[in-house]
Amino acid sequence: MNRELQIQTQGQGLYEVTGQVCDAVTGGGDGLLTLFVRHTSCSLLVQENADPEVQTDLKAFFRRLVPPSDHPSMSYLRHTYEGPDDMPAHIKAALLPVSLQIPVSGGVPMLGTWQGVYLFEHRDAPHKRRIALHFD
Amino acid sequence: MNRELQIQTQGQGLYEVTGQVCDAVTGGGDGLLTLFVRHTSCSLLVQENADPEVQTDLKAFFRRLVPPSDHPSMSYLRHTYEGPDDMPAHIKAALLPVSLQIPVSGGVPMLGTWQGVYLFEHRDAPHKRRIALHFD
Amino acid sequence: MNRELQIQTQGQGLYEVTGQVCDAVTGGGDGLLTLFVRHTSCSLLVQENADPEVQTDLKAFFRRLVPPSDHPSMSYLRHTYEGPDDMPAHIKAALLPVSLQIPVSGGVPMLGTWQGVYLFEHRDAPHKRRIALHFD
Repeated sequence: MNRELQIQTQGQGLYEVTGQVCDAVTGGGDGLLTLFVRHTSCSLLVQENADPEVQTDLKAFFRRLVPPSDHPSMSYLRHTYEGPDDMPAHIKAALLPVSLQIPVSGGVPMLGTWQGVYLFEHRDAPHKRRIALHFD
Repeated sequence: MNRELQIQTQGQGLYEVTGQVCDAVTGGGDGLLTLFVRHTSCSLLVQENADPEVQTDLKAFFRRLVPPSDHPSMSYLRHTYEGPDDMPAHIKAALLPVSLQIPVSGGVPMLGTWQGVYLFEHRDAPHKRRIALHFD
Repeated sequence: MNRELQIQTQGQGLYEVTGQVCDAVTGGGDGLLTLFVRHTSCSLLVQENADPEVQTDLKAFFRRLVPPSDHPSMSYLRHTYEGPDDMPAHIKAALLPVSLQIPVSGGVPMLGTWQGVYLFEHRDAPHKRRIALHFD
């Protein structure tokens, strides 16, 4: 099975897609689900879906690790003409997964109790993001 | 094949699972092995298994990159009620792989000469960790 | 299908392998392509292949995040006898993917418009790098 998931984002942050991911394999028996994000400025992430402060802290950490390109510490960056959020988005997209595999048992992704699946948007402007799904 | 590996950890560090991973596909012919860790505060890692100082240095680097949340530089973190090692563990679990794929040839994972497979525990307290294995 | 790709590198940097990766699945129908790099001092990366300054900036970012081990900030590192680029190479190989999965549709990897596939060499000296390919 090859399918595509479309996610409309509204600026930087984590967008949970656990429900859509589970729906995609319902009734699918045992197998392996692959997610692949078809962009270079957003990422996939498996993270805790219980306390929303985890997401707030993750965003804050990555913003400090890779500040906007108009921040003094980032003055060495050259790819800046698409805005101060652009090159940091590429860097975060290098640091975080572009593809993700989850074993599926009896049509259910074998996520742990606290694991949710997220699209991590790194750009400020709204984007329509496409995730390729493969199940076999 | 869907199977589960259980690893008992004793604080932060790398726990080698190369042997168990190889055992799981012995006699399995050609295929693809997937490991998926069912937690949000530990990671999978493929790294050098020759010089143990590589592991010491990896731990030291990640502890400097993501210090405990009671370190002054981490005062912006909010998710701190489970202890100073908790939110840094989530951050490291975002930076390092939750899933890992290794091609298998003739029942042998195609690891390079110096590659070992590790569970990277990011919490201080002992934990029982579960890794889902899928082979196809 | 299990196959191996060999890449001759000439020092640190990104080496595009998109063409070879596409060739490997041409005529292959639908499926899942896995790349697995059999080393602990280089990485796989999916990144923008339009503006070469993105690659310059990525290299610069990772060199700042993980400076050579003779840099004062890295004096805590112990695994240094193979040169100042060695342990930083292992650290970057931990931070960036060792394995990568791309869904394939009609013999074509489902890469986004701007996505290229790269080997990211982290060592200074030339190396012959081996990438295991699996397609199913």
